[in-house]
Amino acid sequence: MPTLLLDRQKCLRNIEKMVLRAAGQQMVLRPHCKTHQSAEIGNWFMDFGIHSITVSSFRMAGYFASAGWNDILVAFPFHPGEVKLLESISEICHLSILVDSPAALPFLNHLSGQVGLYIDIDTGYGRTGVRSEDTELIEQIITKTGTNRHLEFRGFYCHAGHSYRAASRKELDTIFLKSIGDLEQLKSQFKTLSPKLVFGDTPNCSIQEEFGEIDEITPGNFVFYDLIQHALGSCGMEDIAVAMECPVAGRYPSDERIVIHGGAIHFSKDALMNEGRPVFGRLVHRSQEGWAEAEDEVFISSVSQEHGALEKCGELVRKVNIGEPLLFLPAHSCLTVNLMRRYQTLDGKQISTLNG
Amino acid sequence: MPTLLLDRQKCLRNIEKMVLRAAGQQMVLRPHCKTHQSAEIGNWFMDFGIHSITVSSFRMAGYFASAGWNDILVAFPFHPGEVKLLESISEICHLSILVDSPAALPFLNHLSGQVGLYIDIDTGYGRTGVRSEDTELIEQIITKTGTNRHLEFRGFYCHAGHSYRAASRKELDTIFLKSIGDLEQLKSQFKTLSPKLVFGDTPNCSIQEEFGEIDEITPGNFVFYDLIQHALGSCGMEDIAVAMECPVAGRYPSDERIVIHGGAIHFSKDALMNEGRPVFGRLVHRSQEGWAEAEDEVFISSVSQEHGALEKCGELVRKVNIGEPLLFLPAHSCLTVNLMRRYQTLDGKQISTLNG
Repeated sequence: MPTLLLDRQKCLRNIEKMVLRAAGQQMVLRPHCKTHQSAEIGNWFMDFGIHSITVSSFRMAGYFASAGWNDILVAFPFHPGEVKLLESISEICHLSILVDSPAALPFLNHLSGQVGLYIDIDTGYGRTGVRSEDTELIEQIITKTGTNRHLEFRGFYCHAGHSYRAASRKELDTIFLKSIGDLEQLKSQFKTLSPKLVFGDTPNCSIQEEFGEIDEITPGNFVFYDLIQHALGSCGMEDIAVAMECPVAGRYPSDERIVIHGGAIHFSKDALMNEGRPVFGRLVHRSQEGWAEAEDEVFISSVSQEHGALEKCGELVRKVNIGEPLLFLPAHSCLTVNLMRRYQTLDGKQISTLNG
Repeated sequence: MPTLLLDRQKCLRNIEKMVLRAAGQQMVLRPHCKTHQSAEIGNWFMDFGIHSITVSSFRMAGYFASAGWNDILVAFPFHPGEVKLLESISEICHLSILVDSPAALPFLNHLSGQVGLYIDIDTGYGRTGVRSEDTELIEQIITKTGTNRHLEFRGFYCHAGHSYRAASRKELDTIFLKSIGDLEQLKSQFKTLSPKLVFGDTPNCSIQEEFGEIDEITPGNFVFYDLIQHALGSCGMEDIAVAMECPVAGRYPSDERIVIHGGAIHFSKDALMNEGRPVFGRLVHRSQEGWAEAEDEVFISSVSQEHGALEKCGELVRKVNIGEPLLFLPAHSCLTVNLMRRYQTLDGKQISTLNG
């Protein structure tokens, strides 16, 4: 059965680096927990003095609130179906929500406690958020927030997800500078409200040196990184802290193909493209410390529900045996973790997540 | 929170149609359970007199054996890491395994019970299996199987997964006829062993009329169908028996975009392509019976972890409200079910799966 391995040392090193980066810029690190989804790994952040987190759903907020977190931002637009869950979680921790429209606010008129509110700002990603230049809509939200004694306007949030589409460092820098600039302008325009600026995507948080007036960063994927982040330049191959262990299920020497037990329900269907071919995972070698980069580039190039295929894998097909476990760095660690639902550390300890 | 809705009537109709198709050709229907993954839905098959099933892992075999199934084929190449699980499951039901190499057989020398064995045949898919023409390897496997008193050679299995790549009905027919022809030739060549021919993919099983000497069919996806099957011509839009209910999380009228709560961890990242754009789900309208095809074609055209975006959705963006639940047919129901892990029937009943 495929197993998700976690190199705790690499993970702790990734956390420490980001803690130092944030501290170096006098920013609060409010890590996003959607990648690891684990109370135990959350505790590793606590050990570094982190006291606030970001999550992607109210369900996840409830899980981490129960695990002892007291300052949680739900970085997904609030919608009225979540009111009951919001209410129950806000009884046990300080919750902040994200909105990009006044339409959701009336549903928050009858809260029993206090909830923080950030306005989601779209600096060009084009997913959610108020466009940076739409100060009229921003003012409407702030005004309406002011009429609700249960809500407290905290500031502006931006996830510059278009970083993931950047084709070069220059493009990434352009996206970053535009996003930071837009947020700083809002901070200045609404300065009487002392808004906090919350910003974060793993590529920018891993690479950029100067964060201007940003108060908090919310990267998530950096806790493990993955092949997509590596391709973006966010990390070295040696920083990737999770690997999938998958047994060889079939060998086809005449086709130079190996089939492993490890498919779309383990890795997900997310891939990065490499010379026109999708890559779902990349082979690494077992080493004394855990795993290390392989000399040959061997990729999982197709997946079906349970199967993964290493096509055109060259001589490797003659070297492996049926049942032999191979190790792979995943293309997208967030989705792989979500599917695998538990980790095994290099010393054999099991770590659970929100989902089991 | 996104909810996976199941229209039991549509599902029962899909099952009944396939039962009748198989019976009409004097074939056994051995449905693949990897799509529904549910003991309760398995019982619906039992009600139609089905007594044998196909699964994609030993874990899934164990789940269905505990649910009362007594004849289970694990249609994933056996590898030695599964011996213990195989042994424990074979104590409570008749288990058959799939092999495509003699290499895995020595690990089965010390079983306590009897296990059936099918040889996986590759008729052109290029994933697993012995190539149809490699009768030397097939003979080696049969001979080695004969030396193990715990194994019983049952026949040949073929999943013609390249059906999913067929660009036309003609291509699909070519794949089908080649596969059936190859299997029939093997049946004739090894006739002294009375091998059973087991074949099945949902497109072919849904469309073809004449199955020659095939003894058993193993389609899986037909239980629900999905947009990918619809695009292949396997089903009508009205046959798709599952839909995702996702609340509106954001409205962006100037961009004609709606964002829903429903992303890669709900639908999966699998998509079909429609005029160069990926489609992760297609909007349907709520109707008195459940749902019905919408007049406008509105698609989920991008997903991130929790978000789905209906880009260029036209006038719809002005008609919906924040929090309003919308319904979508999924691109790939197997992966959506695997992620959602439970169903809600149209009359509000919860149905669990292998994973929760």
